[in-house]
Amino acid sequence: MPKYNNMAKNLTKRSEDYSKWYNELVVKADLAENSAVRGCMIIKPYGYAIWEKMQSELDRMFKSTGHQNAYFPLFVPKSLFEAEEKNAEGFAKECAVVTHYRLENDPNSPGKLRVDPKSKLEEELVVRPTSEAVIWNAFKGWIQSYRDLPILINQWANVVRWEMRTRLFLRTAEFLWQEGHTAHATKEEALKEAIQMNQVYADFVEKFMAIPVVQGIKTESERFAGAEETYCIEALMQDGKALQAGTSHFLGQNFANAFDVKFMTKKGTQDHVWATSWGVSTRLMGALVMTHSDDQGLVLPPNLAPYQVVIVPIYKSEEQLISISKVANKILELLKPKSITVKFDNRTTQRPGAKFAQHELQGVPLRIAIGPNDLKNNTVELARRDNLTKEVVPIDGLDLKIQSLLIQIQNSLYEKALIFRDKHITEVSDFEDFKTTLETKGGFISAHWDGTSATEEKIKKITKATIRCIPIGNEVKQGNCVYSGAPSKFRVLFAKAY
Amino acid sequence: MPKYNNMAKNLTKRSEDYSKWYNELVVKADLAENSAVRGCMIIKPYGYAIWEKMQSELDRMFKSTGHQNAYFPLFVPKSLFEAEEKNAEGFAKECAVVTHYRLENDPNSPGKLRVDPKSKLEEELVVRPTSEAVIWNAFKGWIQSYRDLPILINQWANVVRWEMRTRLFLRTAEFLWQEGHTAHATKEEALKEAIQMNQVYADFVEKFMAIPVVQGIKTESERFAGAEETYCIEALMQDGKALQAGTSHFLGQNFANAFDVKFMTKKGTQDHVWATSWGVSTRLMGALVMTHSDDQGLVLPPNLAPYQVVIVPIYKSEEQLISISKVANKILELLKPKSITVKFDNRTTQRPGAKFAQHELQGVPLRIAIGPNDLKNNTVELARRDNLTKEVVPIDGLDLKIQSLLIQIQNSLYEKALIFRDKHITEVSDFEDFKTTLETKGGFISAHWDGTSATEEKIKKITKATIRCIPIGNEVKQGNCVYSGAPSKFRVLFAKAY
Repeated sequence: MPKYNNMAKNLTKRSEDYSKWYNELVVKADLAENSAVRGCMIIKPYGYAIWEKMQSELDRMFKSTGHQNAYFPLFVPKSLFEAEEKNAEGFAKECAVVTHYRLENDPNSPGKLRVDPKSKLEEELVVRPTSEAVIWNAFKGWIQSYRDLPILINQWANVVRWEMRTRLFLRTAEFLWQEGHTAHATKEEALKEAIQMNQVYADFVEKFMAIPVVQGIKTESERFAGAEETYCIEALMQDGKALQAGTSHFLGQNFANAFDVKFMTKKGTQDHVWATSWGVSTRLMGALVMTHSDDQGLVLPPNLAPYQVVIVPIYKSEEQLISISKVANKILELLKPKSITVKFDNRTTQRPGAKFAQHELQGVPLRIAIGPNDLKNNTVELARRDNLTKEVVPIDGLDLKIQSLLIQIQNSLYEKALIFRDKHITEVSDFEDFKTTLETKGGFISAHWDGTSATEEKIKKITKATIRCIPIGNEVKQGNCVYSGAPSKFRVLFAKAY
Repeated sequence: MPKYNNMAKNLTKRSEDYSKWYNELVVKADLAENSAVRGCMIIKPYGYAIWEKMQSELDRMFKSTGHQNAYFPLFVPKSLFEAEEKNAEGFAKECAVVTHYRLENDPNSPGKLRVDPKSKLEEELVVRPTSEAVIWNAFKGWIQSYRDLPILINQWANVVRWEMRTRLFLRTAEFLWQEGHTAHATKEEALKEAIQMNQVYADFVEKFMAIPVVQGIKTESERFAGAEETYCIEALMQDGKALQAGTSHFLGQNFANAFDVKFMTKKGTQDHVWATSWGVSTRLMGALVMTHSDDQGLVLPPNLAPYQVVIVPIYKSEEQLISISKVANKILELLKPKSITVKFDNRTTQRPGAKFAQHELQGVPLRIAIGPNDLKNNTVELARRDNLTKEVVPIDGLDLKIQSLLIQIQNSLYEKALIFRDKHITEVSDFEDFKTTLETKGGFISAHWDGTSATEEKIKKITKATIRCIPIGNEVKQGNCVYSGAPSKFRVLFAKAY
């Protein structure tokens, strides 16, 4: 039933054109495609199945840290949207705006419709680029006393940011995400929550997606519009560019002030509520593709694979297929109790070679091939997608073998990515070195910075590198800014970024 | 952590004002509330937890019938929207339309924003009221040959229909739903799919939600815009009004024609593809409330309860609470392996009476109270929400007792609703009787109808009753139309409806 793109692979090599490789791979592996709507993507079943696995694990992690899901409106009335000025300013330039609520027959073109000018809204509605405004407006009604706090909410939703240059998963006008929104009685508690959720993201991305990240704090100029502090996790792609994989914001009392959300403290006084918000999006799909995949196609960590094992029968006669199917079904039964997901690819419309190519392209972690010789010997051929090795193994004990291999692959993908990432953190101390490293080697550049937005801006203008973060647990060590030479207390991580 | 509305119950009685009872209950039980956006609701955590249970079961049922999830854009360009004319005409009057993509500072009001007139879109974007257009435009690229068929897709999404009169869950401008979209090589296969999915809905609503339904076919005037046939499930609310709980459409080749989606048949000829679409929405939450609940508040079938059992400690001293907590935790451990969800309500900010009232209002199926006497006797007080009975039972064997009670409650709610529904299907044969029954008793009226839209329209004008459906498996029996007296081959079900 799943539909595959049956085109020959012909995948551009990463070394030739990394960007082209990415675009081709996303489409050829049937993860997503562009739609008729400018900048909006279609997430295809194979891609969506991966996203569902991410959702399910994140949802579990949010609930186990005490959060509950809820749902808030898609639209934000303009007057609410503009209430928190910094936030509004940050998103105003990329807002889809609903101005009318009806179409009518176009009297000039029969069969065509036009916007009914009489249906103009009194107040325009912004399609949510993020939901702080609409949620804090609701929180005002929910919070009277310290007894109502904390409120720990998460929402799974679509949001729209009208980006001019879009790329599948990495930057799309509409994307899917989750946004956590919490309200607290004290600054300390809100800060703790923001840090906790950044840690949840780091754990998820490292352990579940096998992508190593740096946890850090954003500089003022890279901070979320309306936040007092933005925590983030930063990953490194194979082309040496960084990718912000998740952010968690300490919002201070900014939204409580903007929406006048006060509560009665235990002492009986009134105080404004403290807030956090945090989110990850379908952008993580892009990070997944760009961290692990190779010139043969997708490489999926077993945790995220829609099916972890595929069985391909190699046969000449109908009888052989019947015998092989019996063995395949035995293997299916063997793996089911171990919660290993398996697909028996018994399509008769495709030859084994085409099936191999397709499963390789789609990154199925383990491939089992069963041929006539295997029937005789009670064996199968077992191939690993991550390192492209294969071996003939006995069916006896195959379940345990596969179980341990899947764990091994998950770990090995993380280790490989970690080694790459660590090799691509380069300490530099002068600006020429900074520029050369950025151009020749890429990756994160660890350098002293004088702490000013002016310097940050100049470096960005000259090199296109931005400060990805001030890593958490950074060693305090006196130095001089790589650009201005002014004193600096610690190194920060620069990189070109997605 | 979950936030409750701590107001006194003061719930309007159903007999006083059913509509007011519903509106109050949805808000007081913390299911949903109105938002700052006209006609858009906020689904609160307790309500969303119920919706998640529905989603999870439906998703399982869709997958086990071979469907895969995917995601398509929120926006439909106007030119795509108008391609299938009947569909476009059906939804044109209730479309939210995006016309601009940017806000700018309002030079006349510092700190305020206005729509940037320079950001006008060349082509307006309709916020999807349903996704046939955008999906069939994509299917065109996915389908070349019979080998690409069937395509069996489902999408979980938000949609917007600009309704003028809205009510929480029942009719909101934005709502959450799932929409299935399938493509087939033959008419027979598509018809079979549409009927199958209507059956899936019937099974879900009856077995999982404990709401009896009538499966039927819509008349031409009640059909989905763009469908050749609309299958539906119709439920009956306690006030005698019907509620359309789900629909499944056989779309013929209408969308394939509109979007020119052809495929090569096995014979090598070209044919247009056959289609279905089907959906249920957060409207089911309204059906749930209005089928089972009573003047004390919500009544939830155990399958849908965010927690099926709540434990309330009754204590005077801190020591008593400690002893009771030990027993409560023992019960939690006892119920966990049986997959029964339990909440120990050990809040110290609320008295037992307030807790009882709240859990009753929120429809928790079983309540366990543990007091000092229970400690002595090794018992608990066990109360059923559905019939408001309670009994003192030994802790020994409590897990089995609860397990069987939950099944009993689930079945008993269905039986009760079924008896009510069956009592409210009245066969009438003259129009005076029709009108009197409708006004005094309500419910479904089973009557002969001459099969014309004109008669249907007249009856609707006079009585506000519509034909809910032509029940499937209807007995063929000659008769005369209840309104026109013209010959009729079978009875149909009329009712006033939500």
